[in-house]
Amino acid sequence: MTNADTSTSFIDQVSWNSDGLVPAIAQDFETGRVLMMAWMNRESLALTASEGYAVYWSRSRNKLWRKGESSGHLQQVREIRLDCDGDTVLLLVEQQGGIACHTGRASCFYNLLQDGEWKENQPVLRDPESIYEGKA
Amino acid sequence: MTNADTSTSFIDQVSWNSDGLVPAIAQDFETGRVLMMAWMNRESLALTASEGYAVYWSRSRNKLWRKGESSGHLQQVREIRLDCDGDTVLLLVEQQGGIACHTGRASCFYNLLQDGEWKENQPVLRDPESIYEGKA
Repeated sequence: MTNADTSTSFIDQVSWNSDGLVPAIAQDFETGRVLMMAWMNRESLALTASEGYAVYWSRSRNKLWRKGESSGHLQQVREIRLDCDGDTVLLLVEQQGGIACHTGRASCFYNLLQDGEWKENQPVLRDPESIYEGKA
Repeated sequence: MTNADTSTSFIDQVSWNSDGLVPAIAQDFETGRVLMMAWMNRESLALTASEGYAVYWSRSRNKLWRKGESSGHLQQVREIRLDCDGDTVLLLVEQQGGIACHTGRASCFYNLLQDGEWKENQPVLRDPESIYEGKA
């Protein structure tokens, strides 16, 4: 594991929220598809920049989350962007395996509002049980 | 102003955070460009769905924010999507005026990390003073 230098000034220039986090959007570099939104802390942003693969902060597990560490669906980072007020990160990534979502879909945003209801409109590309098999 | 029905079940199916908000990403329907990230409460999501234009919740002003109400840069909504765990919204929009950012740029994500520094790499399309002229 790489030790991240979180004292770097580009990290200081991010407007971290009161929990020390910012939202990070992952977008497919080639297709433009928005894949997911997760959270980053200082260390995860530093590691993402130094390692070249997306590292988030899991709020539920309260630990660093190297995206794809269980599934193999790593996100190779092509660009790291910050918005105008410095409180949201945008990653342009190459999504390995073409699957970002733990449900086995390309993107997490598979629920489309139609006629007042959320309807699933993206196919499951791979059975999630096979993705995480033996990796509980 | 439309009164939004916030009791509708698709609203209940969203995992609102402890402040009653969720992040909402706006993406250009045609170009795929990620334009901005803002926040929604129940009422803003209901209004976005009923009016067909993006309505956010301004955390700084603590009020509903009809995107473009000052600038004219409305976001006509083509799709409303929800992610797998129901806590992030993705809007596919037609960005009127081609400018989403209050700095006069197409997108708010104009800061690109290069050689350890955030560098602006998107042009200002319109002087922000002319956008908000007389609309303080």
